[in-house]
Amino acid sequence: MKRPYNFSAGPSMLPEPVLERIRAELTDYRGLGCSVMELNHRSDAFDAILHALEARIRRLLKVPESHAVLFCPGGGRMQFSMVPMNLLGAGVSATYVVTGTWSKGAANEAMRFARVHVAYHGNGTKLPEEEMLDLPEDASYVYYCDNETVHGIEFPEPPRVPSRVPLVSDMSSNFMSRPVDVSRFGLIWAGTQKNFGIAGLSVVIVRKDLLGLASPEVPTMLNYDVYARTGNLPNTPPVFQIYVAGLMAEWIEAEGGLDVMNARSIERSSMVYEALDACPAMYLTKVDPKTRSRMNVTFRLRDESLTDVFVREAEEAGLINLAGHRTVGGIRASLYNAMPIEGAAELASFIRTFALRHAV
Amino acid sequence: MKRPYNFSAGPSMLPEPVLERIRAELTDYRGLGCSVMELNHRSDAFDAILHALEARIRRLLKVPESHAVLFCPGGGRMQFSMVPMNLLGAGVSATYVVTGTWSKGAANEAMRFARVHVAYHGNGTKLPEEEMLDLPEDASYVYYCDNETVHGIEFPEPPRVPSRVPLVSDMSSNFMSRPVDVSRFGLIWAGTQKNFGIAGLSVVIVRKDLLGLASPEVPTMLNYDVYARTGNLPNTPPVFQIYVAGLMAEWIEAEGGLDVMNARSIERSSMVYEALDACPAMYLTKVDPKTRSRMNVTFRLRDESLTDVFVREAEEAGLINLAGHRTVGGIRASLYNAMPIEGAAELASFIRTFALRHAV
Repeated sequence: MKRPYNFSAGPSMLPEPVLERIRAELTDYRGLGCSVMELNHRSDAFDAILHALEARIRRLLKVPESHAVLFCPGGGRMQFSMVPMNLLGAGVSATYVVTGTWSKGAANEAMRFARVHVAYHGNGTKLPEEEMLDLPEDASYVYYCDNETVHGIEFPEPPRVPSRVPLVSDMSSNFMSRPVDVSRFGLIWAGTQKNFGIAGLSVVIVRKDLLGLASPEVPTMLNYDVYARTGNLPNTPPVFQIYVAGLMAEWIEAEGGLDVMNARSIERSSMVYEALDACPAMYLTKVDPKTRSRMNVTFRLRDESLTDVFVREAEEAGLINLAGHRTVGGIRASLYNAMPIEGAAELASFIRTFALRHAV
Repeated sequence: MKRPYNFSAGPSMLPEPVLERIRAELTDYRGLGCSVMELNHRSDAFDAILHALEARIRRLLKVPESHAVLFCPGGGRMQFSMVPMNLLGAGVSATYVVTGTWSKGAANEAMRFARVHVAYHGNGTKLPEEEMLDLPEDASYVYYCDNETVHGIEFPEPPRVPSRVPLVSDMSSNFMSRPVDVSRFGLIWAGTQKNFGIAGLSVVIVRKDLLGLASPEVPTMLNYDVYARTGNLPNTPPVFQIYVAGLMAEWIEAEGGLDVMNARSIERSSMVYEALDACPAMYLTKVDPKTRSRMNVTFRLRDESLTDVFVREAEEAGLINLAGHRTVGGIRASLYNAMPIEGAAELASFIRTFALRHAV
């Protein structure tokens, strides 16, 4: 059977060579006679996996020595708490740029720990122009979400912030999909289950001078500094997720790095947006074209009764998991690193033929 | 090549049928055309995995309706924080029975959030007699560790506590290795990477009336009630760990359940203890024989210079990861559910022949 193209927003597709590699070494990791899942986290073999992953992330993103690379269990909602618990320091307030579901969730969680100033409150279709942003100079940090997965809206460039205020970015859904100037950020975090592996692990890249600010009431496992001081082994980490992220990093390097990932993401998403724009009588795209996401293409059928038909017929054509996020409905096609160009091409073609077949 | 017997304390061995099953369905999960790692956590397929796991845990442990079964990301050190953050309620103090490294770590972490009363402070070789325990009636809970992995010491029976005080048990290293009367406990938690799967997931079984006590300052992902209210989907869970725990539960049921796991654990550990006791000139066992662990057999070479020789020669014989915990040294053989009886028999035989070969 041909493998279907899986447009799930996360957990999402893995590249076939990565899946095949996992299968090939599943019961005997490189001649050790046991699975990578059975490796003790303090063994030489796992130590090599952990260090190779960090080294590849540093190479791919050109992470400067000023920044630490950390691996934390759990996903985004854990980071929603960890960011304020670690970065507030002696301060009490933080600024949040709310552009959609995920930045809003982060701001709501931060309110447990901080006075939250919301600098912008969008509805998921537009990003703030710089003059709109009201950024106090005394905030402990400014937080934003680089790509809002639910709405399909992506910052072309990070927002400009006062130079003394650390910029914190949720890059969960576009991490490792394009080059980033890490030196501009106080902290970048990303769950790995979209462009960089599977669910259960977050990568955190943080300026070292922001470590060690957490109060003693912060739980040990929510303190970034504990990960930094223990070389990412404060306890038994999610060994398998770290292994898979390592294979993803290796695959991205072998494919040519982040410039290649970026070029492909533009090619994939452009094909789909062009198909949608070519059929305006059938499809409605709400996101401002300047800020359309390369990762998550969202649209609606003008005739909402066709939404389920679209999802079902696409599935029959081998294009699966196209239903929009349960909170907003419509259609969402997630086009992460592992999505072949051919998958996006088939979706674009399906979008056009569906419009023809169901034209009024 | 013959698969070596892996005595690692965790992450540790998986049963071969479980490994083979993971490999067989790795790239195509039951005809869906994608890997279980690529399944959306809100898909029907993952929903079935999650519910089957809960149902099997309930059957195996006869979990009463009064208790919820929760799946939390991360391992034991996350639970060290979650227990006090959730169970202190209106109270301020908790009682800890410290019998070794892990209960001590739990008590230390709890001090961030609570006034901690230490009811017993052992050195890892003995468990408290009941009359030794000083248990205040007004504590929010009494916490103990059912099996101390580092020292190899296990409670034959849970300690008796005042009936109004919930008993909390860390069963990380003996979970699913014997039947448990869950109704006696306020909360049982266990990381899955020893007897029940791989690293990155903890199972929590908690009395439902103890949910909902956390204050608003508790991070969302550290609040048990959030897991209970969302059917264990507060966010993207560690999908793969839940899948592997499900396979482990299925395997345990197919093998005959917890009475069989218990009988095997007694058979395995007895063989090894008998070999050690037969060579008292060579080996030193410190743990009180009444409380020897079925899971982790710890011992020392009387001539410490032979410790490394023992580990190396064992490895050459296909018996791997026998070095003791880095904080205590010596030898540790972990004999979890996945360890075949033949593995324990080979180790027992090696212990005897090593003593003969190196006798003075």
